[in-house]
Amino acid sequence: MERIEVGVLGATGMVGQQFVSRLARHPWFNLTWLAASERSEGKTYRGVAPWRLATPIPAASAERVVEGCVPGRGPRVVFSGLDASVAGDIEGAFAAAGHIVVSNARNFRMDPLVPLLIPEVNADHLEVLPEQRAAKGWSGAIVTNPNCSTIVLAMALAPLRVFDIRSVVVSTMQAVSGAGYPGVPSLDILGNVVPYIGGEEEKMQTETLKILGTDGGRAPHSAVVSAHTNRVPVIDGHTMTVSVDLAAKPSPADVIAALRLFSGRPQELNLPTAPQPPIVMMEEPNRPQPRLDADLGCGMAVSVGRVRPCPVLQTRFVALGHNTVRGAAGAAILNAELMHAQGLLG
Amino acid sequence: MERIEVGVLGATGMVGQQFVSRLARHPWFNLTWLAASERSEGKTYRGVAPWRLATPIPAASAERVVEGCVPGRGPRVVFSGLDASVAGDIEGAFAAAGHIVVSNARNFRMDPLVPLLIPEVNADHLEVLPEQRAAKGWSGAIVTNPNCSTIVLAMALAPLRVFDIRSVVVSTMQAVSGAGYPGVPSLDILGNVVPYIGGEEEKMQTETLKILGTDGGRAPHSAVVSAHTNRVPVIDGHTMTVSVDLAAKPSPADVIAALRLFSGRPQELNLPTAPQPPIVMMEEPNRPQPRLDADLGCGMAVSVGRVRPCPVLQTRFVALGHNTVRGAAGAAILNAELMHAQGLLG
Amino acid sequence: MERIEVGVLGATGMVGQQFVSRLARHPWFNLTWLAASERSEGKTYRGVAPWRLATPIPAASAERVVEGCVPGRGPRVVFSGLDASVAGDIEGAFAAAGHIVVSNARNFRMDPLVPLLIPEVNADHLEVLPEQRAAKGWSGAIVTNPNCSTIVLAMALAPLRVFDIRSVVVSTMQAVSGAGYPGVPSLDILGNVVPYIGGEEEKMQTETLKILGTDGGRAPHSAVVSAHTNRVPVIDGHTMTVSVDLAAKPSPADVIAALRLFSGRPQELNLPTAPQPPIVMMEEPNRPQPRLDADLGCGMAVSVGRVRPCPVLQTRFVALGHNTVRGAAGAAILNAELMHAQGLLG
Amino acid sequence: MERIEVGVLGATGMVGQQFVSRLARHPWFNLTWLAASERSEGKTYRGVAPWRLATPIPAASAERVVEGCVPGRGPRVVFSGLDASVAGDIEGAFAAAGHIVVSNARNFRMDPLVPLLIPEVNADHLEVLPEQRAAKGWSGAIVTNPNCSTIVLAMALAPLRVFDIRSVVVSTMQAVSGAGYPGVPSLDILGNVVPYIGGEEEKMQTETLKILGTDGGRAPHSAVVSAHTNRVPVIDGHTMTVSVDLAAKPSPADVIAALRLFSGRPQELNLPTAPQPPIVMMEEPNRPQPRLDADLGCGMAVSVGRVRPCPVLQTRFVALGHNTVRGAAGAAILNAELMHAQGLLG
Repeated sequence: MERIEVGVLGATGMVGQQFVSRLARHPWFNLTWLAASERSEGKTYRGVAPWRLATPIPAASAERVVEGCVPGRGPRVVFSGLDASVAGDIEGAFAAAGHIVVSNARNFRMDPLVPLLIPEVNADHLEVLPEQRAAKGWSGAIVTNPNCSTIVLAMALAPLRVFDIRSVVVSTMQAVSGAGYPGVPSLDILGNVVPYIGGEEEKMQTETLKILGTDGGRAPHSAVVSAHTNRVPVIDGHTMTVSVDLAAKPSPADVIAALRLFSGRPQELNLPTAPQPPIVMMEEPNRPQPRLDADLGCGMAVSVGRVRPCPVLQTRFVALGHNTVRGAAGAAILNAELMHAQGLLG
Repeated sequence: MERIEVGVLGATGMVGQQFVSRLARHPWFNLTWLAASERSEGKTYRGVAPWRLATPIPAASAERVVEGCVPGRGPRVVFSGLDASVAGDIEGAFAAAGHIVVSNARNFRMDPLVPLLIPEVNADHLEVLPEQRAAKGWSGAIVTNPNCSTIVLAMALAPLRVFDIRSVVVSTMQAVSGAGYPGVPSLDILGNVVPYIGGEEEKMQTETLKILGTDGGRAPHSAVVSAHTNRVPVIDGHTMTVSVDLAAKPSPADVIAALRLFSGRPQELNLPTAPQPPIVMMEEPNRPQPRLDADLGCGMAVSVGRVRPCPVLQTRFVALGHNTVRGAAGAAILNAELMHAQGLLG
Repeated sequence: MERIEVGVLGATGMVGQQFVSRLARHPWFNLTWLAASERSEGKTYRGVAPWRLATPIPAASAERVVEGCVPGRGPRVVFSGLDASVAGDIEGAFAAAGHIVVSNARNFRMDPLVPLLIPEVNADHLEVLPEQRAAKGWSGAIVTNPNCSTIVLAMALAPLRVFDIRSVVVSTMQAVSGAGYPGVPSLDILGNVVPYIGGEEEKMQTETLKILGTDGGRAPHSAVVSAHTNRVPVIDGHTMTVSVDLAAKPSPADVIAALRLFSGRPQELNLPTAPQPPIVMMEEPNRPQPRLDADLGCGMAVSVGRVRPCPVLQTRFVALGHNTVRGAAGAAILNAELMHAQGLLG
Repeated sequence: MERIEVGVLGATGMVGQQFVSRLARHPWFNLTWLAASERSEGKTYRGVAPWRLATPIPAASAERVVEGCVPGRGPRVVFSGLDASVAGDIEGAFAAAGHIVVSNARNFRMDPLVPLLIPEVNADHLEVLPEQRAAKGWSGAIVTNPNCSTIVLAMALAPLRVFDIRSVVVSTMQAVSGAGYPGVPSLDILGNVVPYIGGEEEKMQTETLKILGTDGGRAPHSAVVSAHTNRVPVIDGHTMTVSVDLAAKPSPADVIAALRLFSGRPQELNLPTAPQPPIVMMEEPNRPQPRLDADLGCGMAVSVGRVRPCPVLQTRFVALGHNTVRGAAGAAILNAELMHAQGLLG
């Protein structure tokens, strides 16, 4: 099989580096184009990317000359790790110029005509793409993935839709890598908790419902979500406690079975980076833990433990996912894999 | 005023060390007796206490010879920092022998005839003491303080009773000092979250209701509490996110006013270690934080921030308290101060 | 006694905040003037200082209007917490205009006519001030304190000068607060060590010798210092292991006695913030430790432990000091106290 | 090639778990026997090993029944992760009974007839084995690997022997995993440094010289080593600053070249777990760092950076290695690979 050429917008940032790293040996995608802001243009990637990952810069990208984010240049398929301050304009221009933009930025997530995609959860939301093209006048398209904490919650809730989710109270303990680099100052977080992450609660409360919704995401799920978001001194992995009101009143065993049996299109299609299973159920009473479990499924699985009755809302549990893999670049790459398998990148 | 002689049961443990440290310069209490297990008996306190506090061992206690926990020995008033595995028998024997036992142990907390006391919240619960003496046949008495996470929650909820509390979902981020010494292994918690603390959720769910209850604690409050308890890499200070269903549907401003104006018997009586005010309201959006705020009111105040509507339960906020001060030895000492002010130690 | 009016240059930065906090209740100095960069001018201190300390903004400073760093304005005595990028010009201009500048910045530290002062160690270096004034044409003066890691080393070495110091190999483990705010990104330091701090090794290697030198600091000490500087995930307190070649070959007991008996002008003059004693000797084999010992002497003492023979250089030990107190604002304030006691602020 | 049957003594401890994990897919060794103390005997490994690794228990070992440490039972080749309190007797008895004991315990390390082996450094030390057998009357043999901090230092010094090493001052910053489980209490190390590790300095000072010595280790190297050992809040990876007096006075470039070109028997023989290269030279000024670099070479490489002149001793640098891989189980397995390649396990 010939590999599909892909590019990365915002290649020098933290999410961009994750794209570059994770695409280095991808069986389907061939990374041939790196774009960033004007001040990086014309320089080698090694020279301008403040590489922060433990794995070394992939040789194929290190000496590549970075280009500007100019629509029409670069391959048809581009991943976007752009900062939200510029992603809106640039991604729109790329889509208008015929590119398929697979974005991690938040700008288009809540646009009713843009899929907010988790392949295991709402693969059918890709159905809005024709309408997106028509309404926006784009020859390309934009597809987004959720915020890094939202995706963990949405993955854990998806199998519970059968029990009729009515409300959710979630409290997160989020890793510092979710804030990028330099991100959270060490003076703020060493031996500390910061009980606030700007904009994060709103994202969890709205994105989750669009993801679990119907009609391509245009009909949000009817549940109500209350999110408390906190930063803790952890490198990778967002942990969250979840209380959920399930109208069908399933037993913990029912809930565990639903989570354990959950599977979706990526598993069915055996997509290259699909975790098998997507949700790992932990039996030990003190798991999941971010340092031990964030890498499950190569960082693409969500782990769930401590399923038990909630005296207030009905069921409660702990969920965990890797925020920079399943919650960012890995999510976008799985989105692109699904689109390719469905002939949408052709 | 002549100071009252007091002793400490379990003086060599972590809570015992806190008692020794905090009683060193107390204006009302004079620490003259240290008791611990048999293997410490007859040795100097300095020689047997594995001192873990940043402040040095008080000179007056360092060379004191440790005695056994023998009822009848030592002063009438004894603070108990005993481990739960032995506290039940020993504290009972001391009460029977005429001692007033002011205990931090969990063993008698849920006994309907033993006050689970927070002086600001339920000073009236001391009213059960005569009945306690009669029913148990004790010439002394036992008074307890709550678990270290419970007390933070109960302090924050107490001013909200006027709004008719119906249910509470709380998720904690608890400091490692709450587990004593050696306590939590560093391999478990460095850069990690452990979403489980044995027995802690049950304590928060039951103790809170007794504390907020009536009839000396025998009629628990009718609310329902659901607790998620987590350990995080913080030294001191338990932080918690709280969603609470208040039937009276107060606005955030109403809730803030109630918390800010809250005051109790310790403030009224101007007890030596009473925090003024007992609840510190934080205005910054990212506070309270354990490293910055746990020491407020010399560790005796509870701080609350981020009061805002909860789309699921009605109101939500963040609360924080110092777990080894307000949540342990400091709580017991304030209990004793209240009892003394009310003539119950005479 | 009437208090002396003082001001702070660079009042909004991290060191500036330390000055504001520590001067709030000073018995000799009355803080009446806060200066910062143009963009803060005309606004209240509370409005522009990103307050990062656990203690609240002192009431007297909170509502004070910040002025520009204009020479001639403000009191005669000013403390400088200016950033090195601007401190050179501004401090020089203030000294020229008649101000006594007591500076924590590095710009003038190695100027042969500017005292690099540690009151316990080289109080006599103030003797260069008349020559400073003459040579620079200043009606005021500049006095500096050392870098935050240098001061710990120099304090520990000062009592050992009697044993003829020939060479020193020091390896530091430095707290993140030494890098200011936002300073060290949490992604760099959580669960990690960074074995490099830009410019720090050079400062330790040169400043130490000037401090221990003679002729007002113009004749540096003849020892050779080799410094390895490392950042570790600690909030406050720089710890360092030291191997030192002492030609007189003292025993560990001799060295311990010299350190324990060490005292200087601040102790003699009983200056308000002088630690008593300036060096705290630790007897436990695993001390000093930053979390337990950095606050000794209200953060102004240096603690030393583990004095033992070094098979390579002769003697070795561990030293620790509080980097933002003894290593920054606290050092400058003690310098000013010494100057006042010697009639140099009059 | 038929795989060689091997067993593990002390299989349930932390080092034992590392053996079990790392042997699970070894191309040469087939783990068929797990032995531990009497109280584990007869139970499944899963049931008695308090598994602490992020990777799951290997399926082949999970249900295996643990046996007692009885000489004569189990395969000829056994790895020992026994605690030092029992390793002396048990390992000796196994060697007497004909087993080849490849041990991580410290008990026999300094025995002049027992190789303290680092295959890259002193493969020739295996030459003492015939004499060991003769002198001890063993039909088997014992081979040991160094302490976890020693091995990093010895690897970094080995290529510098050509420059005539005269003395070394090393200061370590060691990970908590080096202390086993539960090991270091979190209260001791969170946000802290502990400047003492019992017995560690002596091991570094003596083991290093035996390793670098001649005549099968019986003639220790003539250099003098001074070690300062410190514990820091890092999970895996011992970092150390090293000042070394090299009589040949090589330039930093010479030193870098010697380190970069270093290679040994494992690389020559292409042993399965030999790192290529054994020493990774870092060019960035702030590397190596434990969180980013401890896993280089699958945890078997030592990384070195910041090579520069030392004004006191001649040359200085930073070295880092993975303490539980290169410093424990991985070291022993590489030892066994070398022995097998040399026909010593036959």
